[in-house]
Amino acid sequence: MVRAVDVIRKKRDGEALATAEIDWMVEGIARGDVADYQWSALLMAIVLKGMDRSETVALTDAMMRSGVVVDLSATPGAKVDKHSTGGVGDKTSLILAPIAAAAGVLVPMVSGRGLGHTGGTLDKLESIPGFTVDVDLDRYREILGETGLVLIGQTKEIAPADKFLYAMRDATSTVESIPLIAASIMSKKLAEGIDGLVLDVKTGGGAFMVALEDSRLLAETMCDVGRSMGKKMVALITRMDQPLGRAVGNAVEVAESVACLKGEGPEDLTGLSLDLAAEMVLLAGLAGTLDEARGICERTVADGTALERFRRLIAAQGGDPRVIDDPGLLPQPRRTIELKADRSGRVARLDARPIGDATMLLGAGRARVDSAIDPAVGVILHKKLGDAVELGESLCTILVNDESELERAVAKIAAAYHWRDGPVETPSLIVDRLVRVE
Amino acid sequence: MVRAVDVIRKKRDGEALATAEIDWMVEGIARGDVADYQWSALLMAIVLKGMDRSETVALTDAMMRSGVVVDLSATPGAKVDKHSTGGVGDKTSLILAPIAAAAGVLVPMVSGRGLGHTGGTLDKLESIPGFTVDVDLDRYREILGETGLVLIGQTKEIAPADKFLYAMRDATSTVESIPLIAASIMSKKLAEGIDGLVLDVKTGGGAFMVALEDSRLLAETMCDVGRSMGKKMVALITRMDQPLGRAVGNAVEVAESVACLKGEGPEDLTGLSLDLAAEMVLLAGLAGTLDEARGICERTVADGTALERFRRLIAAQGGDPRVIDDPGLLPQPRRTIELKADRSGRVARLDARPIGDATMLLGAGRARVDSAIDPAVGVILHKKLGDAVELGESLCTILVNDESELERAVAKIAAAYHWRDGPVETPSLIVDRLVRVE
Repeated sequence: MVRAVDVIRKKRDGEALATAEIDWMVEGIARGDVADYQWSALLMAIVLKGMDRSETVALTDAMMRSGVVVDLSATPGAKVDKHSTGGVGDKTSLILAPIAAAAGVLVPMVSGRGLGHTGGTLDKLESIPGFTVDVDLDRYREILGETGLVLIGQTKEIAPADKFLYAMRDATSTVESIPLIAASIMSKKLAEGIDGLVLDVKTGGGAFMVALEDSRLLAETMCDVGRSMGKKMVALITRMDQPLGRAVGNAVEVAESVACLKGEGPEDLTGLSLDLAAEMVLLAGLAGTLDEARGICERTVADGTALERFRRLIAAQGGDPRVIDDPGLLPQPRRTIELKADRSGRVARLDARPIGDATMLLGAGRARVDSAIDPAVGVILHKKLGDAVELGESLCTILVNDESELERAVAKIAAAYHWRDGPVETPSLIVDRLVRVE
Repeated sequence: MVRAVDVIRKKRDGEALATAEIDWMVEGIARGDVADYQWSALLMAIVLKGMDRSETVALTDAMMRSGVVVDLSATPGAKVDKHSTGGVGDKTSLILAPIAAAAGVLVPMVSGRGLGHTGGTLDKLESIPGFTVDVDLDRYREILGETGLVLIGQTKEIAPADKFLYAMRDATSTVESIPLIAASIMSKKLAEGIDGLVLDVKTGGGAFMVALEDSRLLAETMCDVGRSMGKKMVALITRMDQPLGRAVGNAVEVAESVACLKGEGPEDLTGLSLDLAAEMVLLAGLAGTLDEARGICERTVADGTALERFRRLIAAQGGDPRVIDDPGLLPQPRRTIELKADRSGRVARLDARPIGDATMLLGAGRARVDSAIDPAVGVILHKKLGDAVELGESLCTILVNDESELERAVAKIAAAYHWRDGPVETPSLIVDRLVRVE
């Protein structure tokens, strides 16, 4: 017979837990015979003593099976999703999902909301008038079948054990653990009914994992877990030192995503979105090489089919598809402020984190899970890493409604810019690529 | 403002907690704004990351102040108690308390019950017909004033935070931590209203702390904590490899204690009781040297004043004092069994732990906090470490009522005896002595 105290003791003493023990602990949440104070003690022991790969797989599997595992087998075709560990200005989901869908991939995406300095896909989508992410699993399957993609929020049926453990970790300082982070992400993603998953694991000052070695370990862990559970996995480790693209906020990020789908977006954002979409196309078996997959993705932008998919998705989820042709229909701020350069030079660094914090102060993000969001506010960056700037030129446009924290937000943005006079190196966005398909 | 998550994070990361943070967490138990799952996560972090001396003092102090700190200043005289970390056959409290009281020390003793393989002073006392340990704090003061000693159970008013944390530790495998053990013991002892405390920290196979270095660290920690809080402290580190004395059980240990007070007890038990009592007399300032204190204590046995004190204590707490003259009035077993030696030789080892476990199987101890106890059963050891034994001689007498686990108990006792043919060294009981009075 498994007893919670014995499982906790084992982990406390640095031993590996058996799959049956992990199952029993996770199932104990629903059974009600493992107390929350026992789980929190176990979580702290896991944070401090770690978990090996097979424990992490067992935990992910048990958390996934705590809820519904969606069966999408009735919809023919390869289902591939993408997950990002979160960053500032990261709106690639809105761009790559329509591209991959236009290329023939089925994209069943269950996303999260923003928290802290990073934005969330759901919040961005909800800035489109009428768009709803509260879609039940039956309608989720229908929309996927009709449009080839669907973007919803986590329902109560998916991985309820993760919801419990996430709240527990948040209240007990047991968030920072690669096995726990990996199991939390993967348990939800694997419940979506996917065949493959592309991970965008961020690294650098604007990411949750600042150190490259941690980001790589997280990527490896998630890839191994996914592969152990029969999924094809690819992870790109990408820099999150400066914001991705030029727009940071909600409506303003939707507008930038639309621009990308029209072939008019910033180079870094468009490039990464195409790279990730190409990985999805490759995992789905719709191309023989990554280059071929990249070419297919580029054509969906050039011929307008990706944009058309986005239009259909918006309509299917209750939104006003006219925002694609007229971004002015998206929520607009009462006021815009240009932040002017007080010197000439080159941008030597543009720190993502304070930009994310500033947009949160403006109202675009949430400091707490229950904070409300202002979809209209944010920042449009005109100058980024390596750009030459003349004294008095506009560095960025700040989109403002509530001005109560404006001064602090402006100070944070100004301080995010670092300068030098000589040339500046701009390293490539993708640092590493991991593949687990065999 | 202190937040539980921040305190937990700090300890998780191996930092020392501030006194204000520890106070806030302990007071949060009564306030109700620190959740039990937050405390258990902190406890696990403390087990794995440790606590320094000043954190341990702060925790002890906060736990002590969670309840009543008894004020005994109305009773003139030095109040000194003794605490043992628990062993098999350890009934020194019953012997040294009357001795120290007869020597002029006021002995206000709040004791615990037995758990696992070790017995508890309260359980032993309760085998005396009529004796009650459920005494409120007013009557506690009265009995102390009348008889010079009092032996009661932990009341609800004393250190309620310890009660909460002890239950939490038991359910979350966070018992094994020297700072937590020290704080738990000392918070209760320091609430008794004492001026000094003598510790008997057991070491060896029958103790909770098996390794000498752990026992020494626990002794040092408790001495330092007590001294920091203004108490005079002495700790003896004593061997608990074989049971102390010959009797293991409850009534049988009372009978052996009475024999000691009559000068007719076994040498090891009498000696250690006198040594500990002498430390109490010295701490109370009633002697100039330890030798002098030992002499005073010996005289209280020789002249019968110590026995007289025990008689008064029994009467004051509702018990039948005639048990002192007629131990046959104590609960008797239905049956006694002699365990005969199946070989000749010398006892090379007599393991305390299986003897403790065997008496628990006979019903003398409790496997769980709520188990009932049979006061009449137990073991009387006729042969101990170093003794020469002839084939067929009785090793011990087993006192039996419920025979359901008798076979297992007998097997455990037999296996506790280890043999050799040559001479056997019998090391001295006291391994080390620590003094903190300056």
